[in-house]
Amino acid sequence: MKALVLEATRELSLRDIELPQAVGPRDVKIQIHTVGVCGSDVHYYTHGRIGPFKVEAPMVLGHEASGTIVEVGADVTHLEVGDRVCMEPGIPQLDSPATMRGMYNLDPAVRFWATPPIHGCLTPFVVHPAAFTFRLPDNVSFAEGAIVEPLSIGLQAAKKAAMKPGDVAVVIGAGTIGAMTALAALAGGASRVILADVVGAKLKHFADNTAVTTVNVSEQSLADVVAHVTQGWGADVVFEASGNAKVFDTLLDHACPGGCIVLVGMPPGPVALDVVAMQAKELRFESVFRYANIFPRALALISSGMIDVKPFISRKFSFSEGVKAFEEAAAGHPADVKIQIEMD
Amino acid sequence: MKALVLEATRELSLRDIELPQAVGPRDVKIQIHTVGVCGSDVHYYTHGRIGPFKVEAPMVLGHEASGTIVEVGADVTHLEVGDRVCMEPGIPQLDSPATMRGMYNLDPAVRFWATPPIHGCLTPFVVHPAAFTFRLPDNVSFAEGAIVEPLSIGLQAAKKAAMKPGDVAVVIGAGTIGAMTALAALAGGASRVILADVVGAKLKHFADNTAVTTVNVSEQSLADVVAHVTQGWGADVVFEASGNAKVFDTLLDHACPGGCIVLVGMPPGPVALDVVAMQAKELRFESVFRYANIFPRALALISSGMIDVKPFISRKFSFSEGVKAFEEAAAGHPADVKIQIEMD
Amino acid sequence: MKALVLEATRELSLRDIELPQAVGPRDVKIQIHTVGVCGSDVHYYTHGRIGPFKVEAPMVLGHEASGTIVEVGADVTHLEVGDRVCMEPGIPQLDSPATMRGMYNLDPAVRFWATPPIHGCLTPFVVHPAAFTFRLPDNVSFAEGAIVEPLSIGLQAAKKAAMKPGDVAVVIGAGTIGAMTALAALAGGASRVILADVVGAKLKHFADNTAVTTVNVSEQSLADVVAHVTQGWGADVVFEASGNAKVFDTLLDHACPGGCIVLVGMPPGPVALDVVAMQAKELRFESVFRYANIFPRALALISSGMIDVKPFISRKFSFSEGVKAFEEAAAGHPADVKIQIEMD
Amino acid sequence: MKALVLEATRELSLRDIELPQAVGPRDVKIQIHTVGVCGSDVHYYTHGRIGPFKVEAPMVLGHEASGTIVEVGADVTHLEVGDRVCMEPGIPQLDSPATMRGMYNLDPAVRFWATPPIHGCLTPFVVHPAAFTFRLPDNVSFAEGAIVEPLSIGLQAAKKAAMKPGDVAVVIGAGTIGAMTALAALAGGASRVILADVVGAKLKHFADNTAVTTVNVSEQSLADVVAHVTQGWGADVVFEASGNAKVFDTLLDHACPGGCIVLVGMPPGPVALDVVAMQAKELRFESVFRYANIFPRALALISSGMIDVKPFISRKFSFSEGVKAFEEAAAGHPADVKIQIEMD
Repeated sequence: MKALVLEATRELSLRDIELPQAVGPRDVKIQIHTVGVCGSDVHYYTHGRIGPFKVEAPMVLGHEASGTIVEVGADVTHLEVGDRVCMEPGIPQLDSPATMRGMYNLDPAVRFWATPPIHGCLTPFVVHPAAFTFRLPDNVSFAEGAIVEPLSIGLQAAKKAAMKPGDVAVVIGAGTIGAMTALAALAGGASRVILADVVGAKLKHFADNTAVTTVNVSEQSLADVVAHVTQGWGADVVFEASGNAKVFDTLLDHACPGGCIVLVGMPPGPVALDVVAMQAKELRFESVFRYANIFPRALALISSGMIDVKPFISRKFSFSEGVKAFEEAAAGHPADVKIQIEMD
Repeated sequence: MKALVLEATRELSLRDIELPQAVGPRDVKIQIHTVGVCGSDVHYYTHGRIGPFKVEAPMVLGHEASGTIVEVGADVTHLEVGDRVCMEPGIPQLDSPATMRGMYNLDPAVRFWATPPIHGCLTPFVVHPAAFTFRLPDNVSFAEGAIVEPLSIGLQAAKKAAMKPGDVAVVIGAGTIGAMTALAALAGGASRVILADVVGAKLKHFADNTAVTTVNVSEQSLADVVAHVTQGWGADVVFEASGNAKVFDTLLDHACPGGCIVLVGMPPGPVALDVVAMQAKELRFESVFRYANIFPRALALISSGMIDVKPFISRKFSFSEGVKAFEEAAAGHPADVKIQIEMD
Repeated sequence: MKALVLEATRELSLRDIELPQAVGPRDVKIQIHTVGVCGSDVHYYTHGRIGPFKVEAPMVLGHEASGTIVEVGADVTHLEVGDRVCMEPGIPQLDSPATMRGMYNLDPAVRFWATPPIHGCLTPFVVHPAAFTFRLPDNVSFAEGAIVEPLSIGLQAAKKAAMKPGDVAVVIGAGTIGAMTALAALAGGASRVILADVVGAKLKHFADNTAVTTVNVSEQSLADVVAHVTQGWGADVVFEASGNAKVFDTLLDHACPGGCIVLVGMPPGPVALDVVAMQAKELRFESVFRYANIFPRALALISSGMIDVKPFISRKFSFSEGVKAFEEAAAGHPADVKIQIEMD
Repeated sequence: MKALVLEATRELSLRDIELPQAVGPRDVKIQIHTVGVCGSDVHYYTHGRIGPFKVEAPMVLGHEASGTIVEVGADVTHLEVGDRVCMEPGIPQLDSPATMRGMYNLDPAVRFWATPPIHGCLTPFVVHPAAFTFRLPDNVSFAEGAIVEPLSIGLQAAKKAAMKPGDVAVVIGAGTIGAMTALAALAGGASRVILADVVGAKLKHFADNTAVTTVNVSEQSLADVVAHVTQGWGADVVFEASGNAKVFDTLLDHACPGGCIVLVGMPPGPVALDVVAMQAKELRFESVFRYANIFPRALALISSGMIDVKPFISRKFSFSEGVKAFEEAAAGHPADVKIQIEMD
């Protein structure tokens, strides 16, 4: 099977590799159509590791995928050959304590596409459990299906916040995850999102959204904007989606009494937390690790028009241009939110 | 002071009446601009009572109001003369157990406009506590400000449901409260609202909304639509906003396992509840009595464009036509969602 | 394999029957030590059915069991031969939508011991998934292990209530489930349980508990006691554990504003619900169907001494006296809370 | 009026001082019986300030008080002269946004006894709002009534944790607040509390409690104990009650996937937070600032016997020995949990 293989740091090749193709009774086989390039894919490409996960053998990249079912296991009843689908890339042990509690994303035994040593999905065919494969509504394209994965992180964040209708939300960081979190916050109950970044180009995608106030923090004080919008009360929810340790110096200031801060971004090292300041407003912190039971919700929100992800799909490359797609993604053009690869 | 006074059942007059005008240190005085006609106002007009509340003396009607501040009490800091505002019509005892727990709507001592024996606001000037008076954002009209009250009931319902982003919601009943609940559910996280009524005309206001599936239950089975939309799983939240006892025969069927049913409508007598069917899906029931801490949220959602109430303001009458406004409202034209009265 | 088999209504025999004994890789095989007799077992014995579940072929009874592991599947790591254990009697489909959401008790495909057509555990050896088998702490006896199942229903009820420390709870019905719910409510945060029944003998087990107020409702008004204990405010949580439809006439009266009513008992038909009364206090209703992820909690509470179930184990019979045990249970002696059968 | 006055750092005197004695219509006047000495009182005595709160004029100390009502305002209905009571020491602005949301403890305008510049209650008579004054049940002593204040902090922490029945809880720090938190956690649903401190003497008060595992962290690894008790899964809730910044190095390790960490202790400066480690288990952080709507719950738990605070009242001094009481408290004897002063 042909696949986009990360051989070693900064070394990608499109070549044949042996991948399991046996379809179990509760599995489906999918012909891949579109795969998004994720920051984590790029990070493995450029650095060879993320935290404890190190690429020690050639690994197929890609985990944001959509495609068409070509084979269905004997016990699968809710999917059929020909169904257009997208796939949740992490497969937990189904009878583990975390999974049985509905938190399968936290199962230490989870096998996640393109997280070493598990192969990803940048290859023409994959076999996947039917329970983690979701039919695309007719009006949802393959491109939209392939962006469900990062959107699900934003939705997991909004779910964790336990938002109430009319909340004012701050989202710090307008990269892919920040952008998806902003969309999720609006769909999840926010009356307004105050979206902050240091790069003006990233904020432009939200210029026409009357419910989004963009703040270029290199030019304007986020604290001032939050105070103005909320008449000094503070935001109900603050999503930290930048991963920038410096953000934590003023992070608590943006939240209202009894408010919530959701940690989505991943700072490279420990950050400073002012416990007493947190207590003075009895703030709650939530944190997000991927998602659980979110894909069907993401698809429903896209299908009904409550979330429009199309403006965030920046560029497409063909599978044969896959290496170039990664080089472009690694270059980090500010206007790129999501680069996708279409199989030939 | 001139006011629209309910003298007795079916007997309304526009006449002078003495109303308190002293402005306390934490009060404001408001020149009323717009007052919505509520179903409860109409019910007092046509029946003289609602449950235990009986009109036993002439009472000024009206509790959905917006206006302009003309005087400010000595200790009020967040409002100024000239501010355009809307008012929460119920004033609780501030140190009661319910109020101190954040549920001031449940305080038995609450004094609520146009609930006997408390006078309403269909009069040129009212005095009100500043804490229950809310500034209208610049882009929110007086008409929109005066519809915040019924919208707040819908938002209270959506808040009680503890909606999660992407929930599928059913709303049964497309009268004023049902319509407001549908808007609130979408703003509060729903990916889709399935809105049901027996009167097709009431559903037409949602015809262009891609996220709303309307169901004329005199022509179509709601259960079938829910099953189709949710692929047999059921809706995450079901809002009962019709007050029709017959709805309860099939109400539980529409909810998914672990789902929630919110009781907004008020049936005239006890309804039948199948406890075992409720348990088989471990359903949760929530119930709604007015609202607490919702007005600022409603205003924020209108101002940001997340909720558009304008299509639901059907007709306007002048204060001098006030009696006619009530006669029209009492006639119950299906196309009327909200009739409003503008002061002269 | 010998087993206590329900041949037909009112017809029990202790006889050989073929039962599967193959131990899969994630299974364990358990030598049964103690099995409690549950009201549902007795109901199948006396009536041959419960709602839609009808005994149409001989079925082994029993689902409240403890025992010792005698064989361990190849992939089981957390249990060993010789471990004393108790077992959760319902096995869901692990990749179903309900299970993946942490509500495996609501999976329609669940296979539950002694619910037709699934055989129960009143037999010397059973094979069971290791994930639904829990090691008994050293200080927890087999008898206590076998009462974990009904206690778990009480704990599920307390969990659903989302109790807060110091809540006042009412428990209506002091049968096995009511008694277990009372224990669970105290362990789960209640400062006081007001326990009501029409049969004084059932209340006696709580006579020495300073945190329980018992109310014989044939002699005393429950409403008066609740009003006295709560100074007129009402109880934070009301557990309906009687299944008596008449209780619903006054059920809402016992709850405080914003309070919760948990439906544990199963009335034989629909009950009357006063929606407007429920709304006036914005009550929440929760309902309970068995339990999920509760067994380890029940064992921890017994082991630490926070819950003492020993006084509620009324009488023991040997396996060879199994038929007599059921006759005694069916006789319904008021002093019996839980009858257990010990294997020979 | 005689009072225990902090004149300046390390300078206390028992002398006359003018204090307001006018009883408003919703106030009561209380003859003080017992006042506990709190760590914050001692800190003002030894340092003259706590964070931004600086003693700039003579201030009466004391905020943990019980007594007897001697006068009742005209509008007070739930209290009478002669009632034995305890008092909540913080009085918010009743119509502030935080108060109306049920979080009156977070109102910036709160006036709190013995927090500069507000006088405390170490004086024979105080006037207080009736809504913040709570009748002691007959079986609750004045001494117990005066320890309700610190117990309420523990209960606020347990409430914030949203504990579920059977949770395993870790409490780090066994000082007064840690001890009260341990009691609250057990009353609030814990099956077991693992209580850790570096000072063995502080742990001795829990030696006979079968539900408490004490860990002297100078001799034993807390991580090892948690792993042993929870079979490697981690604790459901971890209460940080030491205020020791070093504790944060390993704090996250003690929590289970999806678990909660409640920050009760107040470290003197920022601590290091490993965001990625927090995310890997999707931990939730809660924080505590005093309490709201907790006093009646604390009293109910003491009265029913669910919480026994008596062993934690270490020593009593008379009012005339008040200065000595503070010197003893400032000395910090490890065996002292709570020192109290009884009025003459």
